[in-house]
Amino acid sequence: MNQLEFYVTQIEEQLKQNDFPIEPRNLYDPLRYFLNLGGKRIRPVLTLLGAELFEQDVIQAMPAAMAIEYFHNFSLIHDDIMDQAPLRRAKATIHTKWDANIAILSGDVLLVKAYQQLCKQNSKHLEDLLQVFNRTAIEVCEGQQMDMDFEQRNHITQQEYIEMIRLKTSVLLGCALEFGAIISNASLLDRARIYSFGMNLGIAFQIQDDLLDLYADSEKFGKQVGGDVISNKKTILLLKALELANETQKEAIYHAIGQKDPIAKVKAVTSQFDELGVKQAVLELRDYYFELGIKALQDIEIKESNKKNLFALIDFLKQREV
Amino acid sequence: MNQLEFYVTQIEEQLKQNDFPIEPRNLYDPLRYFLNLGGKRIRPVLTLLGAELFEQDVIQAMPAAMAIEYFHNFSLIHDDIMDQAPLRRAKATIHTKWDANIAILSGDVLLVKAYQQLCKQNSKHLEDLLQVFNRTAIEVCEGQQMDMDFEQRNHITQQEYIEMIRLKTSVLLGCALEFGAIISNASLLDRARIYSFGMNLGIAFQIQDDLLDLYADSEKFGKQVGGDVISNKKTILLLKALELANETQKEAIYHAIGQKDPIAKVKAVTSQFDELGVKQAVLELRDYYFELGIKALQDIEIKESNKKNLFALIDFLKQREV
Repeated sequence: MNQLEFYVTQIEEQLKQNDFPIEPRNLYDPLRYFLNLGGKRIRPVLTLLGAELFEQDVIQAMPAAMAIEYFHNFSLIHDDIMDQAPLRRAKATIHTKWDANIAILSGDVLLVKAYQQLCKQNSKHLEDLLQVFNRTAIEVCEGQQMDMDFEQRNHITQQEYIEMIRLKTSVLLGCALEFGAIISNASLLDRARIYSFGMNLGIAFQIQDDLLDLYADSEKFGKQVGGDVISNKKTILLLKALELANETQKEAIYHAIGQKDPIAKVKAVTSQFDELGVKQAVLELRDYYFELGIKALQDIEIKESNKKNLFALIDFLKQREV
Repeated sequence: MNQLEFYVTQIEEQLKQNDFPIEPRNLYDPLRYFLNLGGKRIRPVLTLLGAELFEQDVIQAMPAAMAIEYFHNFSLIHDDIMDQAPLRRAKATIHTKWDANIAILSGDVLLVKAYQQLCKQNSKHLEDLLQVFNRTAIEVCEGQQMDMDFEQRNHITQQEYIEMIRLKTSVLLGCALEFGAIISNASLLDRARIYSFGMNLGIAFQIQDDLLDLYADSEKFGKQVGGDVISNKKTILLLKALELANETQKEAIYHAIGQKDPIAKVKAVTSQFDELGVKQAVLELRDYYFELGIKALQDIEIKESNKKNLFALIDFLKQREV
């Protein structure tokens, strides 16, 4: 993890050196606050790793990495308003600490700042970077809208769910890596491969997040087991269960979900899931996307030692065992 | 006005041919709705006129013109949320017809769509277009934040007010025109001149709007005279009055503002303004920016006939007499 930690440090330093003006304070103070809340900084590091993979000096990709981190934070700021989330990384969200108007507007300006960062890259790469970035940004918005729509719907298919998480979270990982490849003048084919690696890994880890919510070792996990069940979230676990269930079993699932007591509810739902083999089926789904991603990385014809840090990152992300 | 009307028609047609997908409906239906609410389409027409001025085929500038119109509508959608405005052009705003979350997200995607339009321009102009666009977009956000901050403040100087309207509304007019100039390969000096023309005219017309609110012929104006006074808006008229007033007159202004009955209030405030010669002083301020703008246009060394439509547009905008 040493090299990865070094990259994270570089991103953190760059974030501190932001060129936000002092005034208007109500526009820029919230951004200085939010960008310093921490986070794993995985997305911008992916851009640096994408450049490293194709033997480019990673520092050349720093503005694009910042564009990714700014975009990610823009989307978090606006999502927090939409989700009425009081906390982000255990600190007050912008719309809570200031107000919703300030959160809307500072989010807006951060999105523009992302483009401004991207424009610092060599102009010969600009068109390609923008094309990937625009498409990705639109997809992330579409994914967020799908997620909001799903809350109002009764029936969602697994395919729809996977498409939602692909758009809402995974395409940005692909974009971040492809930025590094573009800046390194990688071929179109290799750009597609590294994008596919990021996107599929993103889907796999998102599925893993759903699994962890219910099946994590509660001591290691560090938050309440079954939170998604308690809040009636339509996770891939539930959708898989409903696919595998016959009519009687479906009724049993809905009965379990209907329980009032949270501990009894989690226990009853887990019991239904166990009967249907949901955990195993979802693990298989996760591994399907995981292997798609790994395969795409393996297909890139470059010396294996260049891939070292990307594999290290996967190990880091996988260490939270289901 | 014939050529101008033709350009407006072309913009309207282009807006109808937008490439918004059908799904997710809650993301794209609001945009189809909002972009069809009408409007004078002055900003995108300015981009076409900027191209025409420097003898470029205006159709070449259509994507940049669309970027301007998309950006303008993005800012209206988000401003409407912040201002809690129920109506826009006598129709329900997006956050009223749908909800605030949908208005935030569809505004976000429209901003990205603006960038996507800009990227359709010839790549040799892309860096310049983006540089001007990013700066302008940030300035518009800063202007909106200043406007919101002013509502909470007691003392605002005229300079601060002018800077606020410059950022919030006028720089986008300069940007729209400069886009046309960039696409026509105009010199840096001419780009600066056409930008200055648009920005200063924008300030002049914004000052005129403040004047019209109180001094317009109510029959021609078509809305309540003195609306800004009634709602306690800090317009340039009020700031000018406070500058011109001595302590006794200041007290009289605050007393007039304190009146409950709206008709009496407008009458009392107008009477104070008349005593101080506010209308004349603000007209002079308007003309100062107006002449700055005209001077910048005159300085552009190109045959006078090329400037015909820009002068026609000014006449059209000026026709609402104070």
